[in-house]
Amino acid sequence: MASNSGRRLNIDNINPHVKAAEYAVRGELAVKSEEYRAYLRSGLTDQGVLPFSQVISANIGNPQQLDQKPITFFRQVLSILENPALLEKGDVLVNQLGYQSDVIERAERLLKDVGSVGAYSASNGVPSIRQSVADFLERRDGFPASPSDIYLSAGASSGVNTLLHVICADEKSGILVPIPQYPLYTASLTLLNATCVPYLLDEAKNWGTDFEVIKASYEKAKADGIDVRAIVVINPGNPTGASLPEEDIRAVIEFARQERLVILADEVYQTNVFIGEFISFKRMLRQMQKEKAGLYDTVELASLQSVSKGMVGECGHRGGYFELVNFDPQVQAEIYKFVSIMLCAPVIGQCLVELMVNPPKAGEPSHALYKKEYDSIFDGLRVRANALHKAFEQMEGVECGAPQGSMYLFPTINLPAKAAEAAAAEGRTPDEFYCMRLLEATGVCVVPGSGFGQKEGTLHFRTTFLAPGTEWVGNIVKFHKEFMDKYR
Amino acid sequence: MASNSGRRLNIDNINPHVKAAEYAVRGELAVKSEEYRAYLRSGLTDQGVLPFSQVISANIGNPQQLDQKPITFFRQVLSILENPALLEKGDVLVNQLGYQSDVIERAERLLKDVGSVGAYSASNGVPSIRQSVADFLERRDGFPASPSDIYLSAGASSGVNTLLHVICADEKSGILVPIPQYPLYTASLTLLNATCVPYLLDEAKNWGTDFEVIKASYEKAKADGIDVRAIVVINPGNPTGASLPEEDIRAVIEFARQERLVILADEVYQTNVFIGEFISFKRMLRQMQKEKAGLYDTVELASLQSVSKGMVGECGHRGGYFELVNFDPQVQAEIYKFVSIMLCAPVIGQCLVELMVNPPKAGEPSHALYKKEYDSIFDGLRVRANALHKAFEQMEGVECGAPQGSMYLFPTINLPAKAAEAAAAEGRTPDEFYCMRLLEATGVCVVPGSGFGQKEGTLHFRTTFLAPGTEWVGNIVKFHKEFMDKYR
Repeated sequence: MASNSGRRLNIDNINPHVKAAEYAVRGELAVKSEEYRAYLRSGLTDQGVLPFSQVISANIGNPQQLDQKPITFFRQVLSILENPALLEKGDVLVNQLGYQSDVIERAERLLKDVGSVGAYSASNGVPSIRQSVADFLERRDGFPASPSDIYLSAGASSGVNTLLHVICADEKSGILVPIPQYPLYTASLTLLNATCVPYLLDEAKNWGTDFEVIKASYEKAKADGIDVRAIVVINPGNPTGASLPEEDIRAVIEFARQERLVILADEVYQTNVFIGEFISFKRMLRQMQKEKAGLYDTVELASLQSVSKGMVGECGHRGGYFELVNFDPQVQAEIYKFVSIMLCAPVIGQCLVELMVNPPKAGEPSHALYKKEYDSIFDGLRVRANALHKAFEQMEGVECGAPQGSMYLFPTINLPAKAAEAAAAEGRTPDEFYCMRLLEATGVCVVPGSGFGQKEGTLHFRTTFLAPGTEWVGNIVKFHKEFMDKYR
Repeated sequence: MASNSGRRLNIDNINPHVKAAEYAVRGELAVKSEEYRAYLRSGLTDQGVLPFSQVISANIGNPQQLDQKPITFFRQVLSILENPALLEKGDVLVNQLGYQSDVIERAERLLKDVGSVGAYSASNGVPSIRQSVADFLERRDGFPASPSDIYLSAGASSGVNTLLHVICADEKSGILVPIPQYPLYTASLTLLNATCVPYLLDEAKNWGTDFEVIKASYEKAKADGIDVRAIVVINPGNPTGASLPEEDIRAVIEFARQERLVILADEVYQTNVFIGEFISFKRMLRQMQKEKAGLYDTVELASLQSVSKGMVGECGHRGGYFELVNFDPQVQAEIYKFVSIMLCAPVIGQCLVELMVNPPKAGEPSHALYKKEYDSIFDGLRVRANALHKAFEQMEGVECGAPQGSMYLFPTINLPAKAAEAAAAEGRTPDEFYCMRLLEATGVCVVPGSGFGQKEGTLHFRTTFLAPGTEWVGNIVKFHKEFMDKYR
């Protein structure tokens, strides 16, 4: 008889890979922060008065939960897609609700292509939306793109899940994953019972990739009998905020060619670049194919993008896509079959992808407002990133490079030995301990570096710079000083 | 060197479980039907004139691709959720766009609870929406339900994926699956490298469940060393259209208790019942717990529902939920972690779940229209189901029980030996051969029974009864006569 009073399932007999998977972004700290939020909302004081009046969720890149407003053009179009009967009242939309003519035209065109947003689409997405993505990629990169290589997905996470499912054949299949990384990658590989082959990013070089480090990780895994099949690159970086220079991207492509690795380029932060410019892996790969004819023609690349990040920030709509470059058509057919089992990505999210890649153009009626909103979000992110960075510079034992991209900073924290002892006494790592105390003292929720992986002997935390205001930043500074004084 | 001109991935080295998975609903016939549709739309005649002027997609339960209109109340609320700025013009909405006051109130309430539909929600879904689902389940079943046992999902498919992932520990883990079945189950088990333990439904008994048959399948699997952990029941049935009587449901629960099996009740067609009434597994389980105190308290049940089917028919929105009954809290925590890796279900789809379980009530301003639309869809389905059934009754060698529920009929087709020979010459099963000829002759796309599994020596096809008009039904009758004459 089982110990579990007769139930079939218990913690010891369910899928061990599910049990082993870790996903800190929504772990203990996040749960506790939501409890605080609920307590503050409830108005109760039965568990005492908290030392803060609001919870700041700096743990999740969730722009619209915080200050970021949706882009008006996008949401006006979506409102018509949800209720096409509004088109019968075009004059009311225009004259009384302020919808511009291009909003109505876009909604009409999408409805013509999509039919109802309540119907399943093709498994890989609405054909005309894939065409629109391909057109965007051509404009972005200056190289051709085909709608048959585009797969619309429920956010980039679903795309990563698809690609790792197809690439990993068994437990010996290895995927090179940057450390620190967004934990979707390690969690997905754990679920698949495949092997994560970590390679360290170089904090001293703005968290760039280091060819020799990647090579050493690869060689070690190979010597251990791992069949390394792909390399993940997150650019701009999560959690690091790094924006990779051209030479790093070229080096990864060259390495992928030499060792026959698929490149998984997570490029969901491509519009959030504050220093330099975003360079896509697709553009660089096609450029290298052009420079040395034939040499790179079988380097396989999958590049992912999402409506969740950037100035769009529409996480809740679960829209995204990936493009396959140089893939075998038979493998693409298997990818199509795999996505068809879950039927299709949310259709309204697919439409949002279309709006993201094909926003109002200069001269079109909605362009001025679109540009104003877009630029204002971008500028706001940059200003807050710099303010947060400035605060970190004042904090004892904290080191953080200038904000380059994405929506995160990932500072090093050098904590006193006594803090490490106190953490161990609680059964926590020092960074978890620090983040828990920070949450309890200030209501600011960040994610400890250990949730992403970090070089042994170093400690970090990841914070978004999405939250409005500066008070919470001041609270972090104040907390940090008190923490350091206490454990010095 | 690989045979694949240097590429890393080819059909022989990708995940063998992806390669092995089968999903006929979107397979060869579906692809061919889409090609026909594109050809007809193009207006070209370079490949000859087709013997039909439109493609009827009777292969997929996709109501809004065919005749079914969305429910007005639902879509009006969603249009406001997508563009909350509309609330500033409440008078225009009411006086000029015909929005009732309860549309506006519902949108305001949902926005208050959800924040922006562009933000991630909690991983298991918006708390107030889970509360609304629990309230609905209490009304439906007459037994308590808790929001902490409700998990909002991207359609029921995503819920099935979650549950099978957690339940199946390794390749010896077995799941009892009805045959015929919706191929999501076999495909998911193949991907997970777990074991499908098929049990035949009883066609002679309106495709009901047969206790002895289930027991025999279970015993055989157990003798083969399979660790059978759960039983799937699809009620009302897909592809069978069956609606299970109380005694079948009781027998399954009793069997699950005896053998300690988790029950996975796929109840997505619960509102599409034409004969008798829908009886939920939850209600019956709680009833049995009440009748014999203590005996059934550890029978674990997961019940799935979706916005895709029924009179809602909003497949493209990817909304759904599952409820866990009698599950171990530690196992529920692992399910929470699993769903958090993919962040959350589409938030607009979650809102649609709320609208589905909490539609306008009698006396509320939107109720009359809601009821009219709802009833008209229901009546239309019943009328078309009966017309199709009547046609099948005229067809030589075709046997089909009266329509009971869901949106499908699954007739037996007795084909002449010559047809089987012609099929074999093409490398097809006889039912695939029949369905391919049907598509080529009439433009009507149905799914061969082999795509769902069928008793050896029997042949079937599944058709929806969603398509409007009766012409396509007449075309099937005509085709069938010609087919039988040709191969007699």
